[in-house]
Amino acid sequence: MTDAARIRGVLSPVVTPFDGDLQPDAERLAAHCRWLLDNGVGLAVFGTNSEANSLSVAEKRSLLDHLAEAGLPPSRMMPGTGCCSISDSIELTVHAVNLGCAGVLMLPPFYYKGVSDEGLYRNYAQIIERVGDQRLRVYLYHIPPVAQVGISLGLIERLLSDYPGTIAGVKDSSGDWDNTGAMLEQFQSEDFDVFPGSETFLLKALRAGGAGCISATANVNPGAIARLASTWESADADDQQADLNAVRAAFQTYVMIPALKTAIAHFGGNPAWAVVRPPLVELQADERAALIRALEALNFSMPGLR
Amino acid sequence: MTDAARIRGVLSPVVTPFDGDLQPDAERLAAHCRWLLDNGVGLAVFGTNSEANSLSVAEKRSLLDHLAEAGLPPSRMMPGTGCCSISDSIELTVHAVNLGCAGVLMLPPFYYKGVSDEGLYRNYAQIIERVGDQRLRVYLYHIPPVAQVGISLGLIERLLSDYPGTIAGVKDSSGDWDNTGAMLEQFQSEDFDVFPGSETFLLKALRAGGAGCISATANVNPGAIARLASTWESADADDQQADLNAVRAAFQTYVMIPALKTAIAHFGGNPAWAVVRPPLVELQADERAALIRALEALNFSMPGLR
Repeated sequence: MTDAARIRGVLSPVVTPFDGDLQPDAERLAAHCRWLLDNGVGLAVFGTNSEANSLSVAEKRSLLDHLAEAGLPPSRMMPGTGCCSISDSIELTVHAVNLGCAGVLMLPPFYYKGVSDEGLYRNYAQIIERVGDQRLRVYLYHIPPVAQVGISLGLIERLLSDYPGTIAGVKDSSGDWDNTGAMLEQFQSEDFDVFPGSETFLLKALRAGGAGCISATANVNPGAIARLASTWESADADDQQADLNAVRAAFQTYVMIPALKTAIAHFGGNPAWAVVRPPLVELQADERAALIRALEALNFSMPGLR
Repeated sequence: MTDAARIRGVLSPVVTPFDGDLQPDAERLAAHCRWLLDNGVGLAVFGTNSEANSLSVAEKRSLLDHLAEAGLPPSRMMPGTGCCSISDSIELTVHAVNLGCAGVLMLPPFYYKGVSDEGLYRNYAQIIERVGDQRLRVYLYHIPPVAQVGISLGLIERLLSDYPGTIAGVKDSSGDWDNTGAMLEQFQSEDFDVFPGSETFLLKALRAGGAGCISATANVNPGAIARLASTWESADADDQQADLNAVRAAFQTYVMIPALKTAIAHFGGNPAWAVVRPPLVELQADERAALIRALEALNFSMPGLR
């Protein structure tokens, strides 16, 4: 049994714009969200590539309120709400559910290392119980290269068994297809959506029953990634995948977040987009020039971006 | 030139008590702080072993307010105020400075990995500039086994050069004496206090010009650790160090935070102390029994604890 209303396809961990004073710019975020939606991509705001973990809970609540007030549809939103502190995770998740968000993408608490699956189970179980809302859809966020604390198959199995319907899926940013494949296989009979964390696995995942992908580069290449997701059974699907991979590789040459912001600043003609919060650092001039040259060599563009 | 008013000696990353509903218990925290002060140990509240990263900013502000209102002296406090989000770090640091805390212990932002010293420099520099208070004393917190993002000698040098007087020292929880020794040597002519993150290095550090230590087990063995810090030039110093090491080893057999809480619950006769927040898990019954047996074999006690 699958829930047809679920959010699926391609989502972008929407990059967060800052002003010169390092404050989030809600207007600019809303505009970028609108451009992504116009290009067929959903809004995984407050993901890793959103610099979400460089934002306070109050800043995230305020940005989410602004997006809703600006008329962006919560049914297309999967905000990141998993924090180190369970009280923060509960507060943000309640806020997202009350706004009507389609789901929440939930990191495990990531400060303490070497924690047990029992401890992670309690974290998620407590959050679900205390949010206490049938509308809640939790997407577990497995990103061991960054969080260092991961989501095991056994943990998913236990949570799915105890909270069916609420535990709705996973984003797998392990970069390890074997792990994504194991998730797809083990939970194929469940109402559980697997999103790889990069479009390089998009075609492979869709062919194996995956739900789509949630990918950093969907911030800059949304139309082409969304097209593959909707035409993956067509004859040119492998060619489309190869083209996506080439663009992805150009960005992956650099630190991803400042590289994404460099492209948005350049193709949208707004240098303010280059600003990142510490501990990140914007790309240097020579890196920016080399990235743009590499993208132009691929005939890359961002049509309609302003 | 050294500042005689600086906080030095032994400090404890004070464990945070929770009630059965996982809410922080401010009264019980104040009582434990009083016991630590009575035993000669300063209050590094909101450290790693305080489960500080399982607390929200609002919870930390409220607990700090309660400690001040309960009459605990801010001159003996070095709260942890370094968060992933620079806005959170600024908010907590301003709060600590306004309460008159002796200093703040500041983790680097720890979600994004592989970040540059330039990015970490900007994080600390922005916080110092925006707090903008001459009373601020920052102790950098180097704990690579947990935070995975560390404080290099080069970063300390640059910060000390740009913010002398404000950058007041470091807690080195690398567990690597070579690193602690290098910090002591490189910055010996500066007004910069080096605290190893374990009392196992206390005597060695004091003999090399260190300021004391900030150690988890100062929560349970404060009197003995403080005695070595004040009598380290006496004939029995090496014997004292060996005794401290034996107690430390008993705790290190288990996950440190639940082990500390087990001892406080047992010797203070208050089982409520055993509660930890997810993602941590309390010790199992057999582990608790074995820890207490090991401590009793060392004639360990916690006199005056209630």
